[in-house]
Amino acid sequence: MSLSLLELAHLTGGEIRGDDTIILTGIAAPNKAIMGEMCFITDPKRIPELADSKASVAVLPEKLANHFKGTILLHENPYYVYAKASQFFSPYPNALRKIHPSAMIDSSATLGNNLSIAANVVIGAEVVIGDHCVIGANTVIDDHCQLGEHCILRSHVVLHTGTQMGMNGRIHSGAIIGDDGFGFAPHNKKWERIEQLGSVWMGDNVDIGTNTTIDRAALGVTHIGHGVKIDNQVQIGHGVHIGDNTVIAACTAIAGGTLLGEGCKIGGACGISGHITLANRVTVMGMTRVIRSLKTEGEVYMSGTGISKVSVWRRNAIRFSQLNDMSRTLKDLQKRLIQLVNDKDKD
Amino acid sequence: MSLSLLELAHLTGGEIRGDDTIILTGIAAPNKAIMGEMCFITDPKRIPELADSKASVAVLPEKLANHFKGTILLHENPYYVYAKASQFFSPYPNALRKIHPSAMIDSSATLGNNLSIAANVVIGAEVVIGDHCVIGANTVIDDHCQLGEHCILRSHVVLHTGTQMGMNGRIHSGAIIGDDGFGFAPHNKKWERIEQLGSVWMGDNVDIGTNTTIDRAALGVTHIGHGVKIDNQVQIGHGVHIGDNTVIAACTAIAGGTLLGEGCKIGGACGISGHITLANRVTVMGMTRVIRSLKTEGEVYMSGTGISKVSVWRRNAIRFSQLNDMSRTLKDLQKRLIQLVNDKDKD
Amino acid sequence: MSLSLLELAHLTGGEIRGDDTIILTGIAAPNKAIMGEMCFITDPKRIPELADSKASVAVLPEKLANHFKGTILLHENPYYVYAKASQFFSPYPNALRKIHPSAMIDSSATLGNNLSIAANVVIGAEVVIGDHCVIGANTVIDDHCQLGEHCILRSHVVLHTGTQMGMNGRIHSGAIIGDDGFGFAPHNKKWERIEQLGSVWMGDNVDIGTNTTIDRAALGVTHIGHGVKIDNQVQIGHGVHIGDNTVIAACTAIAGGTLLGEGCKIGGACGISGHITLANRVTVMGMTRVIRSLKTEGEVYMSGTGISKVSVWRRNAIRFSQLNDMSRTLKDLQKRLIQLVNDKDKD
Repeated sequence: MSLSLLELAHLTGGEIRGDDTIILTGIAAPNKAIMGEMCFITDPKRIPELADSKASVAVLPEKLANHFKGTILLHENPYYVYAKASQFFSPYPNALRKIHPSAMIDSSATLGNNLSIAANVVIGAEVVIGDHCVIGANTVIDDHCQLGEHCILRSHVVLHTGTQMGMNGRIHSGAIIGDDGFGFAPHNKKWERIEQLGSVWMGDNVDIGTNTTIDRAALGVTHIGHGVKIDNQVQIGHGVHIGDNTVIAACTAIAGGTLLGEGCKIGGACGISGHITLANRVTVMGMTRVIRSLKTEGEVYMSGTGISKVSVWRRNAIRFSQLNDMSRTLKDLQKRLIQLVNDKDKD
Repeated sequence: MSLSLLELAHLTGGEIRGDDTIILTGIAAPNKAIMGEMCFITDPKRIPELADSKASVAVLPEKLANHFKGTILLHENPYYVYAKASQFFSPYPNALRKIHPSAMIDSSATLGNNLSIAANVVIGAEVVIGDHCVIGANTVIDDHCQLGEHCILRSHVVLHTGTQMGMNGRIHSGAIIGDDGFGFAPHNKKWERIEQLGSVWMGDNVDIGTNTTIDRAALGVTHIGHGVKIDNQVQIGHGVHIGDNTVIAACTAIAGGTLLGEGCKIGGACGISGHITLANRVTVMGMTRVIRSLKTEGEVYMSGTGISKVSVWRRNAIRFSQLNDMSRTLKDLQKRLIQLVNDKDKD
Repeated sequence: MSLSLLELAHLTGGEIRGDDTIILTGIAAPNKAIMGEMCFITDPKRIPELADSKASVAVLPEKLANHFKGTILLHENPYYVYAKASQFFSPYPNALRKIHPSAMIDSSATLGNNLSIAANVVIGAEVVIGDHCVIGANTVIDDHCQLGEHCILRSHVVLHTGTQMGMNGRIHSGAIIGDDGFGFAPHNKKWERIEQLGSVWMGDNVDIGTNTTIDRAALGVTHIGHGVKIDNQVQIGHGVHIGDNTVIAACTAIAGGTLLGEGCKIGGACGISGHITLANRVTVMGMTRVIRSLKTEGEVYMSGTGISKVSVWRRNAIRFSQLNDMSRTLKDLQKRLIQLVNDKDKD
């Protein structure tokens, strides 16, 4: 796999300063790159590595250009250039375009052109799969699902009945989309199962991480907007609505019926209650518990405490459990002190 | 799929006020229902939607009956009526009753009548499967497992050796039941593996969510009581005992050897320590860390802090790390103030 | 399955006090053991059970030897003896040594001797599998993976392209090793996918829990050291480095680029930020948020609060949100009190 520097410059709007005939053979950190490879800098601490880098090309913003002696691809966002370049070195687009004989595909399914369908894939009735999709081994696509063009489903994915997916999506191994939401009605001290009759809808350019689970709605749809990026082991409850281009880091759980705005950034291992609303472009720091709606657009939210040595933590945690008493003592002291001062003034 | 209103009334003990010949064709929210469909209200904020609803039937308690002009199914628990009705509109009971030719079933397995076994299912030696069970694609049932009647296992489920499951259970995709617990003995600064020789036992009417994991016991059984409902991505450690009709929301982790009582409600994303006991009907709020036994029946427990803007949070979190010092300062001030007052009284 | 007491004593360096001809037929708790079985004590609360135990052998340290009347295997670490004994009663080493006809193995793969490969296993191009490995049903091993000798992969495991695994490893069902890390570059308010071009390397004696996910590095490798033990539903981000013999309990998430030292103990449900460093032998208590490097070797760390009844919690949590104000009030009072005392002294 290779990529001409000229093509990368053209694609990203970058400017070449140096040898524009270079063919890139890979990408690496400045201190690990070998001849033929491209490096880039996003962390300023790594700037000193540029001086001795063996990379053939460095992608740099103008202000760092004097740190590297070889050919430079000038761009104000090297990280974006790296992303674009990485796509030429990925093995996935080159998947073998064939349908494995062990795949079991219902005769009523509609298959696009140029598909790659791996061993043991199971495709149900009335499924529609767009052109250029790649389906990994042992993946199951239930009845009535629809996939747009250029989708990649890794091995061991499950799409349950009626799941809809736009173009250019990617779903990683072990993700389960459209299985039942968690719904039970209390009755005589037991739990009566509520069948989940809705489905899951995903827009274009959606990424879903490994072992992530997205439940079908009880009624209606669970909505995953265009450009949404979801990391591994995330849980999305039934009827959740996620706005376009929102990103969610690993292990976060979002309970049923909650609405996230567009362009939100949700940290890892958060817990977000059901039936609340997060405004557009809200950021939630990692491991935060969100128990109420967050209404201020663009604001950053957090909960919990800092970390400390356990001996220190224990003393402070005990005081946390006495906080209300401390507060009352404090107010009482304040009152008495004012009284004392007043008395003194009268004297 | 359809359901006569008369049958639903009969099944739930509800009373029809209006046209008792209606055949229901679906369920929807009041503002989305079309003719033929049933709606219901659980959230009082949605009462105004009833006035203009196109639903043919609304399920309502007596006190709300005057808000809807069409036919009413009177019931004190509309949510329960909804649950019952939903079961008539689910596609699952109608699964094709056949055994797919690609399923690999050991000749020593005992299969009940009226089974549905999908593609690529693997069933091991001495397995017993009750009548009317539905097994989804690519599911693996290891040697010596037993399933009661009317169980549904979705696609991509794994039951490890010796797992026992009562009647009418449902296990969702990606759930792994009975794999090894996490046991290692320290020895010479390394970890010696403890083979897990026990198994998992589940009662009747148990639901297990997507990608949930339940470990086999080291010795003896991990016990999941009758009517227990477990949501997605929950982790149950080896030797845990969960009492009947307890519900556990998504992403909660319960460490080994812990005992939960009956009728408990455990919120999402909780962490529950090993070898502790929770009394019957205890409620634990979401994202709570349970590091000690909770002994008061019916009590509600919580840990952590509220959520705030990150600038506010940061200031308060720093104070948390100084809490013990604050408390000592407060006590010191209190003492000195009392001293001052006493001195003044003496004057 | 059985094990002679003499062999167990020889293997563990224990001393037999009593009948050294006993053949052990199983392991159980003191109060549940039957004749022929071995019991042991790790929890002092269970010592009284020894008196009436029907076990044929008890594994005890010298100081407890007088509590049991039958044959004793004296050892200062009974838990280690139990671990060793458990390995003789496990069914896994006895897996049928055959390759199931439904397994799809690429002709370019190199297979060792004495393998067990179950139904529907998919093995890709240029894969190398060492002698004595056991591969469970429906497991997928992508191109260019390498497994050392004596590895066990349970059913429904996925190893993505280029994953390397040392000797004597065990990966449990649903674990996904080497799928893409979560990398996107912001561009025009959307997210540009960064293809993950690295891989995952695991040393010898590594255990990976059920439904755990380990991402391939963006560039280079994600490193899992020798003897590392990882529980269920753990998430390891791209480029993480875990030192030898570190253990990680269930449901913990470690973000990309973080470095854990050797011999660390990480509790369950922790969240560990990206690009930080934990020193050797650091312990992190369960459900702790680690947002900074932990640099003190052997230290124990914790965050969060204790648990209380919700009514108590609510009052204290409100005070937490006022902590900074409380602190300022306290300092103000302190100042004024000192002032008062000074004034008084002057009088």
